[in-house]
Amino acid sequence: VPIRLPAGLPTPATVVLAERLQRNLTAMSRFAAEAGLALRPHAKTHKCVEIVRRQLAAGATGISVATVGEAEALTAALESDPPPVDDVFVAYPVWADHGLIGRLARLTERVRISVGADSAAGVERLAPLAGRIRLLVEVDCGLRRSGVAPAQAPAVAQAAERAGLDVAGVFTFPGHSYRPGAAEQAAADEARALRAAAEALLSAGFETPVRSGGSTPSARSSHPDALTELRPGVYALNDAQQVELGVARFADVALVVAATVVSRPADDRLVLDAGSKVLGADRPAWTSGYGRLPDWPEARITGLWEHHAVVASDGPGPELGDVVAVAPNHVCTAVNLVPELLVVSDGEELERWPVAARAANR
Amino acid sequence: VPIRLPAGLPTPATVVLAERLQRNLTAMSRFAAEAGLALRPHAKTHKCVEIVRRQLAAGATGISVATVGEAEALTAALESDPPPVDDVFVAYPVWADHGLIGRLARLTERVRISVGADSAAGVERLAPLAGRIRLLVEVDCGLRRSGVAPAQAPAVAQAAERAGLDVAGVFTFPGHSYRPGAAEQAAADEARALRAAAEALLSAGFETPVRSGGSTPSARSSHPDALTELRPGVYALNDAQQVELGVARFADVALVVAATVVSRPADDRLVLDAGSKVLGADRPAWTSGYGRLPDWPEARITGLWEHHAVVASDGPGPELGDVVAVAPNHVCTAVNLVPELLVVSDGEELERWPVAARAANR
Repeated sequence: VPIRLPAGLPTPATVVLAERLQRNLTAMSRFAAEAGLALRPHAKTHKCVEIVRRQLAAGATGISVATVGEAEALTAALESDPPPVDDVFVAYPVWADHGLIGRLARLTERVRISVGADSAAGVERLAPLAGRIRLLVEVDCGLRRSGVAPAQAPAVAQAAERAGLDVAGVFTFPGHSYRPGAAEQAAADEARALRAAAEALLSAGFETPVRSGGSTPSARSSHPDALTELRPGVYALNDAQQVELGVARFADVALVVAATVVSRPADDRLVLDAGSKVLGADRPAWTSGYGRLPDWPEARITGLWEHHAVVASDGPGPELGDVVAVAPNHVCTAVNLVPELLVVSDGEELERWPVAARAANR
Repeated sequence: VPIRLPAGLPTPATVVLAERLQRNLTAMSRFAAEAGLALRPHAKTHKCVEIVRRQLAAGATGISVATVGEAEALTAALESDPPPVDDVFVAYPVWADHGLIGRLARLTERVRISVGADSAAGVERLAPLAGRIRLLVEVDCGLRRSGVAPAQAPAVAQAAERAGLDVAGVFTFPGHSYRPGAAEQAAADEARALRAAAEALLSAGFETPVRSGGSTPSARSSHPDALTELRPGVYALNDAQQVELGVARFADVALVVAATVVSRPADDRLVLDAGSKVLGADRPAWTSGYGRLPDWPEARITGLWEHHAVVASDGPGPELGDVVAVAPNHVCTAVNLVPELLVVSDGEELERWPVAARAANR
């Protein structure tokens, strides 16, 4: 079934397909509930208060964010009824400098705040927030990004104890799930790292009521006995990467960029008016190109510039002037490029959702 | 000489180094003047009225933009004195639909507008603007993006004539200059395509007073006898790509992202709080990584996520908590990610420039 977009849409336009979004939210909530895991979706994917509300309504226990600024933007509507969210985890090794202590303190007046930490030095800077925030120790499970090795988790927790900070547990991001066929191994690595960290922390006298993991590719391969909580983000909207990883079908892609065929200079290619400034430039080596056209699954986006996507085409395909739907490779960076999302149902515009936490990078 | 950033800067922060910007503007203006070429900088790089003013003051004859929205944003201050710009070329195969004719007509009341075209169908849609805009035919010189083959330029021009539109000439983008060692060949291709198109157009009765080309990597290899005008953009600010192409030195990079070392989880790497949502995700295969650290030229950014840059390091390097300057791979996408640029001179904040045309994608 082709994606139905509102007629006469100026392009490029970033569109959320409302029913698909709701279906994605419901499915992940059901999965988490059946696995006995708390669901704390990562809101960096969508940055929208309206989607936070829907995630909580579907059963999420709180949200994850990447920055204090995202926490601020997504709780700003708190005076409203109902509040969008009252429990936020900044899933990042926060380095509290340049006003961050004051901003975190203000947040704790309104919502429960947990933050990540992966160094004693980082923890010490959070000391002014003793009694007001919870800490989760970040461990690495194979991505080789932030996070200490599980055996080093106690050193971070002990620094927290010295600073008077409450250690609630441990978290990891199995982001090495972002390769074809890697999800099961990443989930196994995640389980092993969380178990090892929990054991090391217990030996040092720290309980770990929270053991948090999850990424969209690996979520359904999680080991529920090793985790208490899942933090997937992308699942709400999905993208071309998830389709090419086999995690989602085109019918699960709930965010597309409407684009016009503006040039057809030769038989072998056409050019869309959606480039890296609306799709994002993410292009891992294992992807087939710079995004996909759900209604033209054979087509490949072989070149991307700021305002041009070149679609290689030698068969039937869209014609000059046609408007097509493009699934970005990475929905999190695509959302961050626009001030609002156009919410569409059955080919009609329902409403517009501000990207409240857009560019909230600090 | 290390880059001097204001003390206590919340990170990540996107910073323009004022003296370097001015030096870059002056150098390209001087080059163009000596080559006898008009300089029409591409403003999609910086999207700032303040930089447009400086480019014009340095001798530019007008600006290039990629979208009608950029033209609107950058001329919006026209009532001001002096006007920021009065001659704008939308260097794109404009497909005039969904309100675009009205928007272009309003622009022509205030500034001279030229637009690109590479199809008869695209030209026909511009007919309501006959007598108000100038057309430049886009030809491809090897990038294989938009633009017809030079021999097909007359067909586009004839469509323009039928629609009563003024054809001012021809343009091309030698973007295949974006590979190490490719600039000279791209400039030669550009010259050949512009000459061939001009000859074909002349045979069909069309003069080409404007023959426009240029990209930052190829600009200084341009063939002045084949061109009348250069449209480089990146040169104003430069980026890691230009350094790795050998087009700029680190000392010419006038935009950096200030980032804090937030994690040092192992001896082989450190993590910065600048990711793809502030640096952009551009990562051509020929680059060494996801950007560079001008003050640590041996360092490589081997991994990039939305809020993490992983810097591989086995020698001396920045420490946990240090603030470092990062040169993004592609400055045009980095600028588009933030609402304002912090202008710094000699380690002090001078002012803030709004990214006026941010997300002006249509």
